[in-house]
Amino acid sequence: LNKVIHIQEKFEQIGELWHPHLLAELNGQQVKAARIKGEFVWHSHADADEMFLVVSGNLTIEMRDRQVQLSAGDMFVVPRGVEHRPVAHEETRILLFEPVGVINTGNTEDTLTRKDLPSI
Amino acid sequence: LNKVIHIQEKFEQIGELWHPHLLAELNGQQVKAARIKGEFVWHSHADADEMFLVVSGNLTIEMRDRQVQLSAGDMFVVPRGVEHRPVAHEETRILLFEPVGVINTGNTEDTLTRKDLPSI
Repeated sequence: LNKVIHIQEKFEQIGELWHPHLLAELNGQQVKAARIKGEFVWHSHADADEMFLVVSGNLTIEMRDRQVQLSAGDMFVVPRGVEHRPVAHEETRILLFEPVGVINTGNTEDTLTRKDLPSI
Repeated sequence: LNKVIHIQEKFEQIGELWHPHLLAELNGQQVKAARIKGEFVWHSHADADEMFLVVSGNLTIEMRDRQVQLSAGDMFVVPRGVEHRPVAHEETRILLFEPVGVINTGNTEDTLTRKDLPSI
């Protein structure tokens, strides 16, 4: 992983929507890339704050008491324990920053759960 | 900090070159923004891997045995303990991801050392 990471090129290597892929690991944290479209599943991560950075497209992060809208170049941190549901009305490319070991659907077991984390 | 962070707008709030400003904190890590131009100082961080993400411009990261070139949309991780010197021939805007408490010039005391970390 000790190379320059060209973010846009990495997204071309991702096939499945909502399946995070590993870009980098540092200080016990991982940087992941995902292509998303549609509505994800409600979930939370008990021990992990989760940062979203939108590279292209638009992302809504629904929480139980509010929602936020992110466009390309926007970041948002969902604090640990906060239930959230990402929604993208068009194909959207995001980076995720979170501790090693976080599963995409958190406390929720779902058909969208992916426990493998391919490196790209 | 529980708001959407519009990265480009944040850079407009940064005056001094090479002075990192705090955008977000999560899981014991900090996300910082910096405007840079020219040659920084050689330094290393004994206990911190440091990730650079170039938002605009071009960044060379010199290390003792090699160098890497980053353009907008590129990331690179400098592993802990590795001496490095960032160089930007034009004004360049970068994000930094590293543990709480990292000082910009690491083990090197210099006129460019900034121990304060303004939140923007």
